[in-house]
Amino acid sequence: MDKRYLFTPGPTPLPPQVQEALSRPIIHHRTTQYRALFKRVLEGLKQVFQTTQPVLVLTSSGTGAMEAAVANLLSPGDQALVVLGGKFAERWEELCRAYGVTVATVEVAYGDAVDLPRVRAALKAQPGTKAVFATLCETSTGVVHDIQGLAAIVNGTPAVLVVDAISGLGADECQTEAWGVDIVVSGSQKALMLPPGLAFLSLSEKARHLIEQSKSPRYYFDLRRSLKALEDDDTPFTSSVSLVVALDEALKLILERGVAGVIQRCQTMSQATRQACQAMKLELFAKRPSNGLTAIVSPPSVDCKKLIKLLQDRHQVTVAGGQGSMAGKLFRIAHMGYIAPSDLLVALGALELSLAELGYPVTLGQGLGAAQTVFGSVKPASTGAAPAPAHSVRA
Amino acid sequence: MDKRYLFTPGPTPLPPQVQEALSRPIIHHRTTQYRALFKRVLEGLKQVFQTTQPVLVLTSSGTGAMEAAVANLLSPGDQALVVLGGKFAERWEELCRAYGVTVATVEVAYGDAVDLPRVRAALKAQPGTKAVFATLCETSTGVVHDIQGLAAIVNGTPAVLVVDAISGLGADECQTEAWGVDIVVSGSQKALMLPPGLAFLSLSEKARHLIEQSKSPRYYFDLRRSLKALEDDDTPFTSSVSLVVALDEALKLILERGVAGVIQRCQTMSQATRQACQAMKLELFAKRPSNGLTAIVSPPSVDCKKLIKLLQDRHQVTVAGGQGSMAGKLFRIAHMGYIAPSDLLVALGALELSLAELGYPVTLGQGLGAAQTVFGSVKPASTGAAPAPAHSVRA
Repeated sequence: MDKRYLFTPGPTPLPPQVQEALSRPIIHHRTTQYRALFKRVLEGLKQVFQTTQPVLVLTSSGTGAMEAAVANLLSPGDQALVVLGGKFAERWEELCRAYGVTVATVEVAYGDAVDLPRVRAALKAQPGTKAVFATLCETSTGVVHDIQGLAAIVNGTPAVLVVDAISGLGADECQTEAWGVDIVVSGSQKALMLPPGLAFLSLSEKARHLIEQSKSPRYYFDLRRSLKALEDDDTPFTSSVSLVVALDEALKLILERGVAGVIQRCQTMSQATRQACQAMKLELFAKRPSNGLTAIVSPPSVDCKKLIKLLQDRHQVTVAGGQGSMAGKLFRIAHMGYIAPSDLLVALGALELSLAELGYPVTLGQGLGAAQTVFGSVKPASTGAAPAPAHSVRA
Repeated sequence: MDKRYLFTPGPTPLPPQVQEALSRPIIHHRTTQYRALFKRVLEGLKQVFQTTQPVLVLTSSGTGAMEAAVANLLSPGDQALVVLGGKFAERWEELCRAYGVTVATVEVAYGDAVDLPRVRAALKAQPGTKAVFATLCETSTGVVHDIQGLAAIVNGTPAVLVVDAISGLGADECQTEAWGVDIVVSGSQKALMLPPGLAFLSLSEKARHLIEQSKSPRYYFDLRRSLKALEDDDTPFTSSVSLVVALDEALKLILERGVAGVIQRCQTMSQATRQACQAMKLELFAKRPSNGLTAIVSPPSVDCKKLIKLLQDRHQVTVAGGQGSMAGKLFRIAHMGYIAPSDLLVALGALELSLAELGYPVTLGQGLGAAQTVFGSVKPASTGAAPAPAHSVRA
């Protein structure tokens, strides 16, 4: 009888339409029926990625697509620059090192956003840099980096810009083509409202050119194979058919609302969460907060692990803790995908009660009221069907 | 209103219990709830693989696990032997070459099974061979290779034996541990009755030792990470949660029947199909036929593509055509996973009608009768709950 509420920044809750699609009888992937569906999915993904360039679908978790980017763009000994500031950005560095790539880094403290002048300087110091790796939403800290600013710098150099938008896409603005991001990587279990198991990757012409030159060994993630199969609306290896069928439903929901409307809803929830935290005198961790999740510093008087356990056991509210060096210091509440403002009251209500139980001074309802005030200030149009924004790419 | 019947050797039909599990609300993968389920799945997989050694779960299609085997066992310049005889065996060679491995091959014609003395001679000629790559069921030809015999040869050398059992496991006998197969690779969408999207890989101690030595670049498929995560019943990267939850249901069904009983059912269907073909004077392609599928040579007087299209359009029966050089020459009917003898009558009945429509001389019901005769000869015990066989590995 316990009703469960999932507020983790991946996986996120599934819409009933997606659950239904997952339960359908399987169809064969080399049929006209599946090809037509897959073609529609590929077009839908382009709209979400805001690009007219190809978006590839890989059967893997997001990390697989990150590896595909590294292995297909770079050869051993090539020079790359990685923008660090959290656990997932560090994965870019690990991936580059696994492939024998020479890595320079521009590092900011966890919670901070990328320092653009330092990136410009680093690229000047290393004019041979072939690729810059960055992160849209750093899920471990809740920071959204300035990818538009970063792209403006990288686009003035021979390097390609590769962005991990696994948890950012569909929550934070990401104008792949207009900003000039060469590769955007994403995953299924975040704003795209699916189970984990699919990864996506957009490819600019500049990136496609580099792919032909890489000498790194690759097969399953060989994007030359993926691009060739794409000519027939196909994939080189068996797709995760059920997840793709469910993605078709998820994309319908997203495109019905419009990408801008979907992002706006995340933004409203993140603003509301921050106002609620301020009302509860809770410190926010991210200096430049993402729309997709809010990372909250556990108050010194509160045992963070106890708090997360209480939310789970008493209120059936699952939030995420801190990762790596942030374990026991942070908790993170997601606002992306199939989480709506009204759901957020469940998370914030449980948080108020749990903090009170642990002896932290809160006035019950104060955080909720602050969130409500934000919800009340939003014009219906922006959470309803938004007009097609100027940057939207329509087939 | 059209009712569809899937007889392709992957994906195979989903049991209703699996469909239901796929549609459940998502749960987070770093919870005690999911860990307990995943631990049960890992134990169940060991029973299906007939081993007490670890079986890893990868979020990819089967090819991903094949690549994981190559990249983790071998370094550039290492020597490998590949047993060729079909499209999927050729994938082993392509993978080895992609990783700079020096490849020797023992090739048989499509439709033939591995010639063991030639393998023995090849290993004698190349005593430095580090790994032998083979296929249990070659899905492109319907051949089941003699893996037990192959293992007896390879086990007398320093090489490891790696077997692609993507479509074979759970249809053809595969005694991983008793035979001494170091790595068995499988996939979710065949006898395991799931959608595509998960791959599996068993690892002997000998294989685990080699993994520590490989210098090939790898990250997502780095099995050292997988083995480390396995200590906590976890995976290094986000699992395809819904597919794993569904796998838990599929394994319950398989283990309830018993692996031997499941294989026996496939064997009954393959025998019945061969008898039906004989009655219809159709030529079988595989010299050593798998239990999992039957590859049938299209009669010279019949246009194979027309036949497959007629089966699909008139009878909603989906079978597979030939692959690569066998396209237009073969069609393939699956007997693995959630396909039961009674279902096979649907496929054979549609085949009789379609052949008749295309002018091929058949007596309607003759093939069906031959299949029925096989079904009637099977003792109820062997299609019912079979007693635990001697080789079954129970936790």
